[in-house]
Amino acid sequence: MTNILPGPVDSPLARMRVVLVRTSHPGNIGASARAMYTMGLARLVLVAPAKFPHAEALALATGAASVLEGAAVAATLAEALAGCALAIGLSARPRAFAGRVMSVREASREAIARTRDGEVALVFGTEMSGLSNEELAQCGIAATIPANPDYASLNLAAAVQVAAYELRIAAGEGDVWRAPRFARATHDDVESLYAHAERTLADMRFLDRKRPRLLMPRLRRLFGRAGLEREEVNVLRGILARVDELIGRTPR
Amino acid sequence: MTNILPGPVDSPLARMRVVLVRTSHPGNIGASARAMYTMGLARLVLVAPAKFPHAEALALATGAASVLEGAAVAATLAEALAGCALAIGLSARPRAFAGRVMSVREASREAIARTRDGEVALVFGTEMSGLSNEELAQCGIAATIPANPDYASLNLAAAVQVAAYELRIAAGEGDVWRAPRFARATHDDVESLYAHAERTLADMRFLDRKRPRLLMPRLRRLFGRAGLEREEVNVLRGILARVDELIGRTPR
Repeated sequence: MTNILPGPVDSPLARMRVVLVRTSHPGNIGASARAMYTMGLARLVLVAPAKFPHAEALALATGAASVLEGAAVAATLAEALAGCALAIGLSARPRAFAGRVMSVREASREAIARTRDGEVALVFGTEMSGLSNEELAQCGIAATIPANPDYASLNLAAAVQVAAYELRIAAGEGDVWRAPRFARATHDDVESLYAHAERTLADMRFLDRKRPRLLMPRLRRLFGRAGLEREEVNVLRGILARVDELIGRTPR
Repeated sequence: MTNILPGPVDSPLARMRVVLVRTSHPGNIGASARAMYTMGLARLVLVAPAKFPHAEALALATGAASVLEGAAVAATLAEALAGCALAIGLSARPRAFAGRVMSVREASREAIARTRDGEVALVFGTEMSGLSNEELAQCGIAATIPANPDYASLNLAAAVQVAAYELRIAAGEGDVWRAPRFARATHDDVESLYAHAERTLADMRFLDRKRPRLLMPRLRRLFGRAGLEREEVNVLRGILARVDELIGRTPR
């Protein structure tokens, strides 16, 4: 059987397909599409969905409507898995499963590695009972999301979110937004600041040069921990220069 | 201000509180409670929720109704954070944040470590716009969930699910269910199997002892990779013994 989803397969995440089996509630299909797309997954296959397409699916997909529009519908799980290099079934307790059982984190690393061979499917069962033994047997790996043993019932879309998140990190796309870094102060800038501070503190008679105690080491420790930026050194030296003026000293 | 949530704080996860700020939709409060509880988190504080309590929250919490029942409602974020050792704000792009920015995985490790000092709060903003700059400024760390730069809009409860999942793993509660392991075959068991197989295959004239090629090495490689269990060795020897009978040999 040929691949039922056409389209580009140029990155590991683009080679992942999410398969939802016999989903009861169309809202869960939409929420799963949203969860996928937030992590960069876009290929969705629905096996015998109770209701699809459906307005509630579209409403819960919000900005991920394109994932629903591109979704394929398959009559059987076998059809949904055709053309895949590997299928990974999500299961809370894969008791009757003969293959390898691993955490979703381990399974995600395996999934990304196997995208070298072709598409990899991530398979989710129904809201009420997950994948049947027969369905799970069609998968090469059973993946489990660690959970509270007293209440391990993740919502379907929440399980898709966790698995998609782990796939994104496994694919090396786990970078988070960082604030732009400002120029760090040089060693000389910082030493000049400490020298200036020591003079001014002495002039203020806050520091007694004959009995300096730990004042300067404490200031060094504080600013060293912060990691001063060049602009911050300028601000601090400006404050010191103003103190110098107020106590009648000219800046040296 | 004293701790607004009473209760036991005997494990790292029991010292985590989830704070939802100005949540618009009661369904998201219920789904967040469910997400928390699947990962073993139970302490929820709601800051100025639009509607609470509400039937829709209860419906989406499913088996986690106890989390909703135990939830505290606070008028302000400052009240919700009272008594905490650390507050971590979830934010997609903490542009104006002066503190440390880290991934939710890094932040979860920090959170669990800091539960030694007291409770740690995980703070989530509104569905539409997240935390305001003023709210995030009340947090010591901004945590970011890696996401698709073209569509980084996780559902509120989905974000709670990912963060709670990372906390559970950081707390060392990431073990997944494993099938019980059966007794492995001993070296001697396995070598006796290979010896038996070689005799039988020769008797069947499938193996030519003068030109054995790679048959036995290939079988050794296959079974070695599988890691034979004792019971499996017994089954395989039973099959060989039956072949022995059929071709008129008595088992040796």
